[in-house]
Amino acid sequence: MSARTDVWQAKFERLRSNKLFELLVISVILISALVIGVKTYPLPPLANQAIVIMDWAITLFFAVEIVVRFLGESDRRQFFRSGWNVFDTLIVAVSLIPIEDSELALIGRLVRIFRVLRMVSIIPELRTLLNSLLKALPQLGYVMLMMFIIFYIYAALGSTFFAAINPELWGDISISMLTLFRIMTFEDWTDVMYETMAIYPLSWSFYLSFIFLSAFAFLNMIIGIVVNVLEEEHQAQAREEALAAGEPTLSELRDEIQGLRRLLESRQS
Amino acid sequence: MSARTDVWQAKFERLRSNKLFELLVISVILISALVIGVKTYPLPPLANQAIVIMDWAITLFFAVEIVVRFLGESDRRQFFRSGWNVFDTLIVAVSLIPIEDSELALIGRLVRIFRVLRMVSIIPELRTLLNSLLKALPQLGYVMLMMFIIFYIYAALGSTFFAAINPELWGDISISMLTLFRIMTFEDWTDVMYETMAIYPLSWSFYLSFIFLSAFAFLNMIIGIVVNVLEEEHQAQAREEALAAGEPTLSELRDEIQGLRRLLESRQS
Amino acid sequence: MSARTDVWQAKFERLRSNKLFELLVISVILISALVIGVKTYPLPPLANQAIVIMDWAITLFFAVEIVVRFLGESDRRQFFRSGWNVFDTLIVAVSLIPIEDSELALIGRLVRIFRVLRMVSIIPELRTLLNSLLKALPQLGYVMLMMFIIFYIYAALGSTFFAAINPELWGDISISMLTLFRIMTFEDWTDVMYETMAIYPLSWSFYLSFIFLSAFAFLNMIIGIVVNVLEEEHQAQAREEALAAGEPTLSELRDEIQGLRRLLESRQS
Amino acid sequence: MSARTDVWQAKFERLRSNKLFELLVISVILISALVIGVKTYPLPPLANQAIVIMDWAITLFFAVEIVVRFLGESDRRQFFRSGWNVFDTLIVAVSLIPIEDSELALIGRLVRIFRVLRMVSIIPELRTLLNSLLKALPQLGYVMLMMFIIFYIYAALGSTFFAAINPELWGDISISMLTLFRIMTFEDWTDVMYETMAIYPLSWSFYLSFIFLSAFAFLNMIIGIVVNVLEEEHQAQAREEALAAGEPTLSELRDEIQGLRRLLESRQS
Repeated sequence: MSARTDVWQAKFERLRSNKLFELLVISVILISALVIGVKTYPLPPLANQAIVIMDWAITLFFAVEIVVRFLGESDRRQFFRSGWNVFDTLIVAVSLIPIEDSELALIGRLVRIFRVLRMVSIIPELRTLLNSLLKALPQLGYVMLMMFIIFYIYAALGSTFFAAINPELWGDISISMLTLFRIMTFEDWTDVMYETMAIYPLSWSFYLSFIFLSAFAFLNMIIGIVVNVLEEEHQAQAREEALAAGEPTLSELRDEIQGLRRLLESRQS
Repeated sequence: MSARTDVWQAKFERLRSNKLFELLVISVILISALVIGVKTYPLPPLANQAIVIMDWAITLFFAVEIVVRFLGESDRRQFFRSGWNVFDTLIVAVSLIPIEDSELALIGRLVRIFRVLRMVSIIPELRTLLNSLLKALPQLGYVMLMMFIIFYIYAALGSTFFAAINPELWGDISISMLTLFRIMTFEDWTDVMYETMAIYPLSWSFYLSFIFLSAFAFLNMIIGIVVNVLEEEHQAQAREEALAAGEPTLSELRDEIQGLRRLLESRQS
Repeated sequence: MSARTDVWQAKFERLRSNKLFELLVISVILISALVIGVKTYPLPPLANQAIVIMDWAITLFFAVEIVVRFLGESDRRQFFRSGWNVFDTLIVAVSLIPIEDSELALIGRLVRIFRVLRMVSIIPELRTLLNSLLKALPQLGYVMLMMFIIFYIYAALGSTFFAAINPELWGDISISMLTLFRIMTFEDWTDVMYETMAIYPLSWSFYLSFIFLSAFAFLNMIIGIVVNVLEEEHQAQAREEALAAGEPTLSELRDEIQGLRRLLESRQS
Repeated sequence: MSARTDVWQAKFERLRSNKLFELLVISVILISALVIGVKTYPLPPLANQAIVIMDWAITLFFAVEIVVRFLGESDRRQFFRSGWNVFDTLIVAVSLIPIEDSELALIGRLVRIFRVLRMVSIIPELRTLLNSLLKALPQLGYVMLMMFIIFYIYAALGSTFFAAINPELWGDISISMLTLFRIMTFEDWTDVMYETMAIYPLSWSFYLSFIFLSAFAFLNMIIGIVVNVLEEEHQAQAREEALAAGEPTLSELRDEIQGLRRLLESRQS
């Protein structure tokens, strides 16, 4: 029976790595994305019925695909180690639950929308792109913390002084932080400023100092990323080039010269 | 007759590469651009008549110029291989059609406007600039796809939840994508947000996460281009410099040292 | 007694550098930040009382911590040389003053908010980040001066010509500078422009030239910072790499070759 | 008499290069800037009189300073070769004309404002900064031309199709270009778009394609500048470092090795 399982496993593994199968999966994801898009338009009842049927067909296809991928895995305990596999399985499992309750119906619709994300899990280039995005996040940690401290202090100041002027913008510290984010995007920030300047004529210094501080911290963040990326690229490329061209390092040259010296010295004695 | 054709071909080729002829063509394109600009102002009837005449003169000149360029081509089958030649010929051909129908009149006006683009096809520096712009596009392919997926998912979410609140902004998935592009440019995005926050108080997280994701993907795109451009420039320059200065490579130095060693060894024996 | 003082000083120094003590200080700063945030919400009387008690507890803790840090300093005259120590002591000292007057109550609230900044003085990474931000400022000195001159001239022009049109935007030179800053952030700048274009139809050139000049100066500023940062990073890294890899410099190689030559020449004689 | 002139010329040259004299000039420029600023506020009659007197004192001081600088020049024919000297002389000359006519009074006020620019002509660092800004402009020439072509074509299209919808935004080609600049700064661009989308539902493609094209061209421009600046800095620094450290070039190393070889070969024979 173990041998028979192996035969099946090999068959499924071949199917998984088949280019046509991959294309089929991508097309079904695209169709599922289209169905989501079409559903946002007003549709005749017939089209609605067609969509319900397509929806079930897509869900079934995804379920079969997950099973194929699972059975095609040589070491099945490794399957759920990959975050993408867990994500795919969850999405399919929730889609399979028959939903009648209106509360759950919402979750069903959300799950169908997030199925588009499976595109990222299928196309390797998108997966590596996302990974590189995620990898860049932690190195920004301290700048993010600094920015949060700036936001927090200005929000505390804002809600202390301006809450009475416009509680919708400065009512409490979380609303104030949203308002500060709005100011950082320069979105109608002068309306906010002119309103408080009517009571506190010097409050422009609050806004200007915040804009300068946050812009400066933001700039620092971007420069930090650029420098990091450039340095990494530069090192990698320099190493590759040197290797590709068969270029010797300075150390190798020194060794050559020292070899010469030893040769001369040995002859001298 | 073939010899006679060759004589004419050589004459036309000389004319094509004549600097004065090129300047004349650029001036006529400039005049055609001015005519387009002038036509947008209210004009006395006499000026209108003058413009109609100038328009025909310009069209005729362009037709003659294309013929000269075609006849001046040594291998005429190559002529339509160049996209710019096809573009120029099409523009001239459509201009030559006498238009009376109001539908076609619009196309005639469009063609006259696009004649300004001939500036790009005539000035080589602009042509290389455009080519470098177009060359940079495909390398952005996957980031663009990622961004489209982000837009699509958020637009699907937006039209699912907010369509009832403001159908003009979130009515269907294509309108939602336009609204999201507007949010990405920070154009009155808080108005959109405050409107949905009145119903869903937590919807700020929808907008903020979208802004962060799209800004991050956009940043990634820019850094990608900058790194690519810098690396290419750097390599090209490094190679040029080394060649220009007659600077030996490390490999050449190693060969010199190994030559020395062989010399020593040959003397030893 | 001096010996006894030394014993205490050593004890306090150990306490200061204790990781747990540091974590405790960070947690208390976090709690103090939370208290500030919570106070901006409407609270039941009991919670208000709890906050007052917590506030005193935090103030006391900070006072004790400063004393520990002061007593733990081996050379106490050095303690107030550090700007961060002065900042911490001031914040704690002002918090300790019992405030009843409404004027002073405001200062008390401000001081409590600025206590969040102690996060920066405690976490070394944030301190170095802030130092690097401050270090980048002076090198921008002349670009800032240039930008101020641009702003001043345009503000003088603006208040000379447009003061009669809208005194709220162009009334005097300081208001005009605020309006110009608003234009620089592209915040409803066309409303400002259309208003003056109704009287001076050519005033668009004022706005466009200002936007170009300030954008160009700003760009120059950013490029200046990026170049500086990249060059510094590059040098530091190049040096480190060379050292780490035990790579010889070109000078060392030359010395090796010249040593060889001397060896040959000595043998020749 | 020639000898006597030389004595005076030397005296004036010493005065010009005197640090105290330079500081005095800078202070007077600052005072002149302050006077300009103060004049924009409503003032009591006494202050107005004081300002008129100060204004004349400043004008006189500048006139004397120009004369000193001119007389201190060793080769007076060179004096007006410098654009800054011409600018300074013009500003002073126009300030000296007694103005009564209201038309000319305006020019008098403008000239007084532009006196602040003398700051740039006095402080060498600002002068080099401005020169570097101006030097960067021509290398942008073709990108600027490309951008102008994009603007022109879109403005022609805009005024052809949208002039009837809103003549204030799309009336003729120059107004359309201003509107397009506004769209490029994202300033209420959706209002412009929604207005035309009511008539031409597909006109969003006009705006989106314009934003993409102009953003792309703008990005290209910035990257161009950054690359140029970085390359120049890099080359200059690399050369300096190599020279400063007394680092030999690879060519020098090769010469050393070839010298060794000749030594060996000469001994062999």
